[in-house]
Amino acid sequence: MATHKLLLLPGDGIGPEVMAEVQRVIDWLNAQGIAKFETEQGLVGGSAYDAHKVSISEGDMAKANAADAVIFGAVGGPKWDSVPYEVRPEAGLLRLRKDLGLFANLRPAVCYPALADASSLKREVVEGLDIMIVRELTGGVYFGEPKTITDLGNGQKRAIDTQVYDTFEIERIGRVAFDLARKRKNKVTSMEKRNVMKSGVLWNEVMTQVHAREYKDVTLEHQLADSGGMNLVKTPKQFDVIVTDNLFGDMLSDIAAMLTGSLGLLPSASLGKEDAKTKERKALYEPVHGSAPDIAGKGLANPIAMIASFGMALRYSFGMGDLADKVDAAIAAVLAGGLRTADIKSQGTTPVSTAQMGEAILKEL
Amino acid sequence: MATHKLLLLPGDGIGPEVMAEVQRVIDWLNAQGIAKFETEQGLVGGSAYDAHKVSISEGDMAKANAADAVIFGAVGGPKWDSVPYEVRPEAGLLRLRKDLGLFANLRPAVCYPALADASSLKREVVEGLDIMIVRELTGGVYFGEPKTITDLGNGQKRAIDTQVYDTFEIERIGRVAFDLARKRKNKVTSMEKRNVMKSGVLWNEVMTQVHAREYKDVTLEHQLADSGGMNLVKTPKQFDVIVTDNLFGDMLSDIAAMLTGSLGLLPSASLGKEDAKTKERKALYEPVHGSAPDIAGKGLANPIAMIASFGMALRYSFGMGDLADKVDAAIAAVLAGGLRTADIKSQGTTPVSTAQMGEAILKEL
Ligand SMILES: CC(C)[C@H](C(=O)O)[C@@H](O)C(=O)O
Ligand SMILES: CC(C)[C@H](C(=O)O)[C@@H](O)C(=O)O
Repeated sequence: MATHKLLLLPGDGIGPEVMAEVQRVIDWLNAQGIAKFETEQGLVGGSAYDAHKVSISEGDMAKANAADAVIFGAVGGPKWDSVPYEVRPEAGLLRLRKDLGLFANLRPAVCYPALADASSLKREVVEGLDIMIVRELTGGVYFGEPKTITDLGNGQKRAIDTQVYDTFEIERIGRVAFDLARKRKNKVTSMEKRNVMKSGVLWNEVMTQVHAREYKDVTLEHQLADSGGMNLVKTPKQFDVIVTDNLFGDMLSDIAAMLTGSLGLLPSASLGKEDAKTKERKALYEPVHGSAPDIAGKGLANPIAMIASFGMALRYSFGMGDLADKVDAAIAAVLAGGLRTADIKSQGTTPVSTAQMGEAILKEL
Repeated sequence: MATHKLLLLPGDGIGPEVMAEVQRVIDWLNAQGIAKFETEQGLVGGSAYDAHKVSISEGDMAKANAADAVIFGAVGGPKWDSVPYEVRPEAGLLRLRKDLGLFANLRPAVCYPALADASSLKREVVEGLDIMIVRELTGGVYFGEPKTITDLGNGQKRAIDTQVYDTFEIERIGRVAFDLARKRKNKVTSMEKRNVMKSGVLWNEVMTQVHAREYKDVTLEHQLADSGGMNLVKTPKQFDVIVTDNLFGDMLSDIAAMLTGSLGLLPSASLGKEDAKTKERKALYEPVHGSAPDIAGKGLANPIAMIASFGMALRYSFGMGDLADKVDAAIAAVLAGGLRTADIKSQGTTPVSTAQMGEAILKEL
C-alpha cells in the first residue's frame, strides 16, 4: 500500500479543534489498514506569526511542497488585526495557493436534506441542491500586478489592483470545470462581466473555444456574473458546475454556501496542475468556514466541513473515491440521525460538541 | 413654478413601454399644475445603434448634459449581441455615467409586504426589508486604465482590467452614504476586500477617516465583501445603508434586489456631484431590471420600477419628497389591492397589463 504524506496546518481559532477530528479519522484509517497516511504538522496564519513573525515559515512551505496534500484549518482573528499587511494571517493561505500553483478551487454547495430548513431560502428552492463552483484561484485581481497604494500628495492616495488573465489560465480552469461536469449533470455555466471587463471578453471567448474544441458533449452556458448571482439566489437548482474567476468566484461561492443553510458543513479543494509524468497534483483542502475566534476552544465548532475537506482529499488526491463516498454518507447519516453542533441546532435535535460530532462520524464509518 | 427639463431615454426592449407609463404620470402632473416638466426624447443602446451606429449620439449626449435629469429605460438585446464592442448597447449607459460624472448609484432594496411571498427567501427573512445600497459608479475596475486585450503570440492573449480608486472618490461616495443614513436608521456598512486588495485597504481607511471627521453620529461598520454577501442572503435586515465599490456594488445590489421578490419593482438613482453654486446635481434614474427583449411589445412588462425611478427623480433632483412619497404609496396601494403584471402574478391576484398597471397607479395618485 502506498504511503501518502499529509501536512496538517490547523491555523487559528477553531482550526486546531476541527483538525483534531480529522486526525482521529486518519488514525483510524491507518489502524484499520485501510490506508497509510504519514502526517506532519505546521503553523499558518496568526499562530505562525506568533511563533515566527511570518504568516507561514519557509520550513513549513517546504513541507507543504513535499506533501502529497495539505489539510488546512482556518486563519485569522482580531488578535492579528493590526499586524503588518505582508504578514497578516491570510497571507499564509495566499502564499500556499500561489507557490503550490493551486489554480482550481472546487467548492461544492450541497444542501443536506436534514438541514434544508436551516437555510434562509425556502425549502423547495434549496432542497436537493448540488452545485459545484469552480473558482480560478491564482490569477485575477487578487494577485495581478501592479497592486499598490501611492501617495499623490495633497492628502490624496491612489490604490491600484490589476485583474490579469492569460489564455492558458482560462483554458486550464475551463478543463477542470468541463471534466467535473462530465461526472455530474454535464452542464457548465461560465460567469464573467464581458459587458464591462476585457478579462470578461477573453474569459468568454476562451471558454467558448475550449468547449468547441474538446467538450462538445457538455452543455456550456454563459451568464453575466451579476445576473448569475441573482439566478443563484432565485433558482439555484438551474446550475450544475459554475466556472468563474477569482473575485467573482469568491463572492458567488460564498453566496452558494449560504444557500445550503450552513457554512460549517462545506468543504473545498484547491488543486494544482497535473504533473505530466506522475499524474499527481499539488493540493490543499480546507473548510469554507473561517476561524470563528469567538467560539474557539469551547467545543462548539462544527468539524463536518473539515472532515468533508479531508474526504475531498481522499477523492481528488488519492483516488479513493469509494472511501470519500463513505465519509460523505457517514456525515449525512449523522445529520439525519439528529446530531447537531451549536451552529446548526434546531428544535427536536440532539446537541453535541465538536468531539462528539467527530466521534459519531467515525462510528458511522 | 420652476420648469424642470427631463431627457427621456427609453432605450430597447421593454424600455419604451414602461417609459410610456412615466410619460403619463408627467403629463398628469403638468395638467394638474402640480409641477412643470419639459420633456425631450432621445435614443440609447441598440435603438441608437440602429439609427446612428453609436450607442448614444453626440446630440443626445448634449441633451443629457443640458437636462435637469435623465430618465433611462433599459438597453440591450440579442439583436445587438455582435455589434462592435465600443458601440454595444451598454456603452451608451456607461458613457452617460462617466460623462455626467454620476458617481453615486443609489439602489434601494425594499420588500413590499404584498410581495414578500414572491421572494425565494423565507417571508420572515425579507418581510419589511429596507436597505439602501450605495454603489460607486464611475471608478474601479469597470473604468480603470489600462483595459486591454493583447496578443502575446503562441495563441496566447492577455486581458487586463484595472481597479483604481483615489482618496477623493472614496470620500465623496462615503459622504453620500452617511448623509442617507442620517435620514434612515443611521447605520452604514462599508464593504471591500482589504485582505486581498489594496483598493480595499484604502477604501477601509478613507471610510474610517470620513466617519471620524464628519459623521461620528452615524454607526459605521466594515464587512469583507464576500462575507457581506453571505450576510445579505442570511440576515439582510441587519443592514441599513451599504456602501461599496463599483464591482462589488454591481453584484451585491443585484443580489439584494433578488431578495425582495421582484426586480420589476426596483428603481435606482445615479447622482453626480453637487454644483457649488446652484447646489444642483446631474442625475440619471433607471429601473434595476433589464430590457427583457423576450417580452417586449406584448404589454407584459411591469412599469413599477420605471415609475418608482421617476419617483426617485422627484425626491433627489427636484426636492419634491412629498410627491415622491405619494408615488411610493400609490405603488404600494395598487400592489396591496392585488393588481399584478405577469412577472409577479400569484394565486388570487388580478392580472393586468403594463398600461393597466400604469393607469391604476395614476388613479391612486
Ligand atoms: C482569506 C481570503 C484571502 C480568501 C479569499 O478571499 O480568497 C477567502 O475569502 C476565501 O474565499 O478563500
Ligand atoms: C449594463 C451594465 C454595464 C451595468 C453594470 O454592470 O454596471 C448593469 O449591470 C448595472 O448594474 O447597472
